[in-house]
Amino acid sequence: MASVTGPEIERLIQLLARLPGLGPRSARRAALHLIKRREQLLAPLAEAMRVANETVRVCSSCGNVDTSDPCTICRDPRRDESILVVVEDVSDLWALERAGVVNARYHVLGGVLSALDGVGPSDLNLDRLLARVTDSPVKEVILALNATVDGQTTAHYVTDLLAPTGVAVSRLAHGVPVGGELDYLDEGTLAAALRSRTRG
Amino acid sequence: MASVTGPEIERLIQLLARLPGLGPRSARRAALHLIKRREQLLAPLAEAMRVANETVRVCSSCGNVDTSDPCTICRDPRRDESILVVVEDVSDLWALERAGVVNARYHVLGGVLSALDGVGPSDLNLDRLLARVTDSPVKEVILALNATVDGQTTAHYVTDLLAPTGVAVSRLAHGVPVGGELDYLDEGTLAAALRSRTRG
Ligand SMILES: [Zn+2]
Ligand SMILES: [Zn+2]
Repeated sequence: MASVTGPEIERLIQLLARLPGLGPRSARRAALHLIKRREQLLAPLAEAMRVANETVRVCSSCGNVDTSDPCTICRDPRRDESILVVVEDVSDLWALERAGVVNARYHVLGGVLSALDGVGPSDLNLDRLLARVTDSPVKEVILALNATVDGQTTAHYVTDLLAPTGVAVSRLAHGVPVGGELDYLDEGTLAAALRSRTRG
Repeated sequence: MASVTGPEIERLIQLLARLPGLGPRSARRAALHLIKRREQLLAPLAEAMRVANETVRVCSSCGNVDTSDPCTICRDPRRDESILVVVEDVSDLWALERAGVVNARYHVLGGVLSALDGVGPSDLNLDRLLARVTDSPVKEVILALNATVDGQTTAHYVTDLLAPTGVAVSRLAHGVPVGGELDYLDEGTLAAALRSRTRG
């Protein structure tokens, strides 16, 4: 393609192809879509990216990304500051916010411990977590980590790390997903759901 | 989400969601991916979009998009200017160029005739096609249009339109796609493939 179109368009396609969910072919389609909608989409998106690049900050308190530091959530006085919800990634924070199930503060670890990927405790936002729990009125830490081996290893580690502070540490319950069919669930989930059964 | 993150990030997500291939959920993932890679991806992509917006032109000869007018293909002296390949959209031109099967010029109609979508002849780049065939050394027009009802209706229309000029008009052959399994092909394709069978 290099010979049939200007380098400016090639560069746009190459960068778009680095977005998750867009491969080389869909990146070309996206580039063409943008080029055909210069006024309505290409120019506004270029500007939105420029603005985001200049304004986005990582919250120095919780690790969330926002255009202010502390972030909107950390500044929200209506949120229960006695509860910290620990997540692996900002995307998990966003998922919980979309679900509207948390009215507390968060703490973003920025990953999970992983022997395979060489991620150790010093790679995670743990010092700051310990400081927040120690210095503030936090009474409970909810570990909202993925139910993967690495997620659960990290949950163990954080539980041990926070033990000296005396804070209550809890985890998300295992069980049958809402709308989930038993047929499709693994044994571990079924066993956990049975163990944690609630009275009807 | 409006209350938990700055409007700048929301705007970025909303615009990204308008790209083909990205829904609301993958747009959020893409936004987060960009925000986490500000130096390596967000800033370069914002700049590439700004540059594309300022430099991209529609070729006044063929309807291709490029950063020069006439486009790279129309200016290429090595291409056979006696053949015009007519396509519906720039994406088809790109597909043919990727395949490397055309060494001629193109003409982009910018759509196909469609009673359903209210697309008539005046909505397509047809006047310019007729002028190019009339004024230039074009000897053959290859209609590389989709094998859909609208594509074939348009092919008929263009054939009739060009008849008075005496130019040779041809179409892409129907047949079994390379690597295609007969099992999965419709009757029309199988009939066409049989009709146009070649001697082994
Ligand atoms: Zn924060
Ligand atoms: Zn051109």
